[in-house]
Amino acid sequence: MIDGLMKRIDELGNPTVVGLDPTPEMMPEHLKEEMLGRYGKTPKAMAEMYLAFNRMVIDGIYDLAPAVKPQIAMYESLGIEGLNAYFETISYAKSKSLSVIGDIKRGDISSTAAAYACHIGGVEVDGEWFDPWKEDWVTVNPYLGTDGIQPFIEAANRRDRGIFVLVKTSNPSSGELQDLTLAGEGEKASEGRAGEKVYERVARLVDHWGSQAMGSQGYSKVGAVVGATYPEQGARLRELMPRTFFLVPGYGAQGASGKDLKGFFDRDGRGCLVNSSRGITGAYQKDKRFSQFHVGEAAREAVLRMKEDLANVQG
Amino acid sequence: MIDGLMKRIDELGNPTVVGLDPTPEMMPEHLKEEMLGRYGKTPKAMAEMYLAFNRMVIDGIYDLAPAVKPQIAMYESLGIEGLNAYFETISYAKSKSLSVIGDIKRGDISSTAAAYACHIGGVEVDGEWFDPWKEDWVTVNPYLGTDGIQPFIEAANRRDRGIFVLVKTSNPSSGELQDLTLAGEGEKASEGRAGEKVYERVARLVDHWGSQAMGSQGYSKVGAVVGATYPEQGARLRELMPRTFFLVPGYGAQGASGKDLKGFFDRDGRGCLVNSSRGITGAYQKDKRFSQFHVGEAAREAVLRMKEDLANVQG
Repeated sequence: MIDGLMKRIDELGNPTVVGLDPTPEMMPEHLKEEMLGRYGKTPKAMAEMYLAFNRMVIDGIYDLAPAVKPQIAMYESLGIEGLNAYFETISYAKSKSLSVIGDIKRGDISSTAAAYACHIGGVEVDGEWFDPWKEDWVTVNPYLGTDGIQPFIEAANRRDRGIFVLVKTSNPSSGELQDLTLAGEGEKASEGRAGEKVYERVARLVDHWGSQAMGSQGYSKVGAVVGATYPEQGARLRELMPRTFFLVPGYGAQGASGKDLKGFFDRDGRGCLVNSSRGITGAYQKDKRFSQFHVGEAAREAVLRMKEDLANVQG
Repeated sequence: MIDGLMKRIDELGNPTVVGLDPTPEMMPEHLKEEMLGRYGKTPKAMAEMYLAFNRMVIDGIYDLAPAVKPQIAMYESLGIEGLNAYFETISYAKSKSLSVIGDIKRGDISSTAAAYACHIGGVEVDGEWFDPWKEDWVTVNPYLGTDGIQPFIEAANRRDRGIFVLVKTSNPSSGELQDLTLAGEGEKASEGRAGEKVYERVARLVDHWGSQAMGSQGYSKVGAVVGATYPEQGARLRELMPRTFFLVPGYGAQGASGKDLKGFFDRDGRGCLVNSSRGITGAYQKDKRFSQFHVGEAAREAVLRMKEDLANVQG
């Protein structure tokens, strides 16, 4: 999967990921009317809006971008009906040959992590295998340590899929824990080093975990989430994780642009997927040339603009 | 909710939480035959087994224990059908007046955290409110800092529900990040202190977050997950978080017993909920007096045994 993903990024000349994080505010009026009319004021109506909206976005961008990243929280907030829209969104994206990164940020201890790993690894029922969610990649939280990651690595290897571990997130308070400086307790890989930050410690763990799941192009199936909003840390993390593909949130609506990402890419201009959500899916609301009937067209133009911006920093 | 929960623990004289983490290995043969016969080898069959099994457990314990804790991963691994069983399990538990702690360990940045907070806060659709998951409490991951917690605190206050933040988890590798020693960068609440562990830093944040959501009995709606498998750290954390209710996993199958928990309770023998999953729900498999038709009876006896064991350390 990491090899296939890299090949597709090269073919398209574009490392842009389209984040599918629908909100009520983002829905076109005509979709609201249609679905509220059909299903009443219900979570089902909202879920059907999200799914129809995502299809419009996907139709606009599937031949330009290598991947989409649905944020499961947006769907989970609508209960079972919402998660059904999440699943159908993934199925539709895959029918258009897009890679799908499920932004699920799960993390738990071993037997429970093994259950969550079904997202990429599938689930066995009395000897038969099922693929209940169908993501190619998922995001994972490292707070519980190796126990919580190992089942995902096994699933990634078994099915040739992958994970992105949260290392340095894009939000304002990410430093409260992630930027704390360690006193250091020795030089073993399992211990902290004096002067190191928590996120650097996590980066070394990610590099170690990735050594168990290498692809053939020099990158592993264990990637890292590194926020575009922290350019210096991103460059430092590229040094610490030379074999790790980065999933980079925070571009666009959260404030970062291409020039902030110079240090995130490797010398060949590879090694990153850059996500934009509202900047692409909500583009139709920000430009007077578009109406509520141009969700896909506006998304397409936003992806092309982002491709150009990123090409400038890929060396 | 924190006040009501404490009152119920006092009434029952029992801080035991029954973990509802079903696995295929735990299912009685007669349930397997029934559901595989009815639904074939499908995730739906397994989900129906889990739900029927949970009802047997709940019927056995609802008048002895204050709360149940379904682990959402076990259900999520079966896709939409599994999550339906999760929801129906919660509904059934609440119909029996049990408090429900959704063990979901979610964590994300602000707008996304707000979406996840629907688990306790509900969701609004065009002016109408819905309760898509119905948990009274959920577990939350702190790796993203205050941004990721604030929306849950707002939901907890709005609906009088609560959260348990992961502080020191029960698994073997929890120390990889949580036990790292900090170099210290000052004495402001937002910074690390020299010599402090990461989990102690998180504990101070939890104490601070809790100050925004106090109940009337001296405890807040922001609780902490503290593993029973780390008795020394538990006692230390009780000192650091005097107003914080502890949700304590790791009792029973994971190796800890009542004597390990002395320091977790406060001087009045309050302040903790202690979870056991397999030790209660799988009790019917471990005692020759019980058959596959005695899931509830065996669970009931296991809860009574645990109540007695915990009474010895509650002062």
